[in-house]
Amino acid sequence: MPVNRRITLAARPVGHPRESDFALDEVDVGSPEAGEVLVRVLWASVDPYQRGRMSDAKSYAPSLQIGDVITAQSVGHVVESNDRRFSVGDLAVGQLGWQEYATARAGTLRPVPGELDPQTLALHAVGMTGLTAYFGLFDVGKPRAGDTVLVSCAAGAVGQVVGQLAKIAGCRAVGIAGGPEKARDLIELYGYDAAIDYKNDDVAQALRGERVDVYFDNVGGEISQAVHRRLNLGARIVVCGQVSQYNAERPELSFHPGLLIMFRARMEGFLVFDYAHRYDEATRKLAQWVANGKIRWREHVTDGLENAPRAFIGMLNGENRGKALVRVAERAE
Amino acid sequence: MPVNRRITLAARPVGHPRESDFALDEVDVGSPEAGEVLVRVLWASVDPYQRGRMSDAKSYAPSLQIGDVITAQSVGHVVESNDRRFSVGDLAVGQLGWQEYATARAGTLRPVPGELDPQTLALHAVGMTGLTAYFGLFDVGKPRAGDTVLVSCAAGAVGQVVGQLAKIAGCRAVGIAGGPEKARDLIELYGYDAAIDYKNDDVAQALRGERVDVYFDNVGGEISQAVHRRLNLGARIVVCGQVSQYNAERPELSFHPGLLIMFRARMEGFLVFDYAHRYDEATRKLAQWVANGKIRWREHVTDGLENAPRAFIGMLNGENRGKALVRVAERAE
Repeated sequence: MPVNRRITLAARPVGHPRESDFALDEVDVGSPEAGEVLVRVLWASVDPYQRGRMSDAKSYAPSLQIGDVITAQSVGHVVESNDRRFSVGDLAVGQLGWQEYATARAGTLRPVPGELDPQTLALHAVGMTGLTAYFGLFDVGKPRAGDTVLVSCAAGAVGQVVGQLAKIAGCRAVGIAGGPEKARDLIELYGYDAAIDYKNDDVAQALRGERVDVYFDNVGGEISQAVHRRLNLGARIVVCGQVSQYNAERPELSFHPGLLIMFRARMEGFLVFDYAHRYDEATRKLAQWVANGKIRWREHVTDGLENAPRAFIGMLNGENRGKALVRVAERAE
Repeated sequence: MPVNRRITLAARPVGHPRESDFALDEVDVGSPEAGEVLVRVLWASVDPYQRGRMSDAKSYAPSLQIGDVITAQSVGHVVESNDRRFSVGDLAVGQLGWQEYATARAGTLRPVPGELDPQTLALHAVGMTGLTAYFGLFDVGKPRAGDTVLVSCAAGAVGQVVGQLAKIAGCRAVGIAGGPEKARDLIELYGYDAAIDYKNDDVAQALRGERVDVYFDNVGGEISQAVHRRLNLGARIVVCGQVSQYNAERPELSFHPGLLIMFRARMEGFLVFDYAHRYDEATRKLAQWVANGKIRWREHVTDGLENAPRAFIGMLNGENRGKALVRVAERAE
């Protein structure tokens, strides 16, 4: 019987996570019950929201308990099926976690379309982060042609898609990212009209002259405070993430609601899961835009499940360039 | 030729306004030009937003300059008309300022319906503060029957109407006000289901068990922070005013945008002026609800134009019980 290696939560991180907050353990591979499938994981995703699950602060989703496998989206091959929706050999994506094998209710998985190339797109531009960009920008931000759309963490997995969707909608796209390489990617790879490198530019200064109609906020904190001073009348602030706060013991109060009166503006939070009934519509469009080159992407791959914690810590520090992924196995064994 | 007494801005208030920030002067009464009317002011309004005009901080409206007449809504009789829309003797309401006589473009005034009793309703429940409550609650807050609507400054001119509109919409209305008299008014006069006296109750404690669907925020600051922890999923925060901040040198950062993700919530600011094209619709409804007793009200009257600054300072300190008004004259002379 094969063994399942898993990355579990060893300790709740305090502030910045450390590798010692994670453990690698080995358990027997489970057997799928009726309605379940067993998946051999090939690729696992590394995303900022995972930091929230490791905390016991109240959130929109339950916290991980010590010893739990780290929550993650993963792609893998079905190796055993007890549900008619999946056959052995099918490629599936779902919340399978940082582990080599996972059993899951078939209804919680989605098939990865065969034409998707590479298949890892199901973990980003044509997966959860692409969907997050899609519903956040179009449904919450409601951009109109000619609007200026500003994106923080613009070179991140969600941000890189948001900028390109903004261009598809006829908007001007301005991105904020850390470091000259990412700033160059914004312009040259993701088609942003302007890029601000917050590590080297004075963000407030760089924003002079901008009038922001849609602010797609992944970061919060000081960068967002600089943006809030540059809103246009009727601006929409899409609160997607607040990555600057994820390691904070207590989230920073960074906003003065009176600004929303001055600019007659709206600030709204959302969760992609609330749009599950429209995933098919959005996935089709995202796949099409990727296929015809309207959405470009970059991956940052770390090899080996055992290196997932290091990849995660690096991503929170902004060290990845492109969507952070862990290659768990080359193919189902 | 009669003399016009006016209250002007003598100095920009620093922190809490003082009476010495205002001056009383006398000038000749002007003559209306073509398209203008001359109005003898009978009643002048006293409202928190006026504090913003006295500051030179960037806002949604231009600042007053030293020597300018204080901006205010007023009701008065037309005593001379150079426009066919108004005849001598008509009662009109508009942004006429703290003065005894005002010339104004006829298009900026609205007639006060003859059946309105008392006519001062045109300065509150059936005037600008009633309209503010109406559009803020219905168009921004979008309450559904059964929702809990929480209102800060609930005994104020806007807040007293919001609670009653919430009841008309089939909601549970909870109000926050300062002092036992105002808290009693909330329940006994304005029909709130529950009242919190922030001067004597622990607001955070009093809010335990509440799940707020619509927060109509007039106050900001600490009270709002306590409310933000009690939002329901899908909550709407209507940012109408931030009176706790109006005397601050620098507005307080009082909000963590990540809360909007946790509660999938929306926070939106608005200005009543943006709904000018719908004033007729709303005024008709408000007048009807006042006439049939569904909207009750209380006025806090100060006699004499010269006492307007004192009334204003008292209102900012929460000393008024009901809508703050200044009686400028009994009737046109």
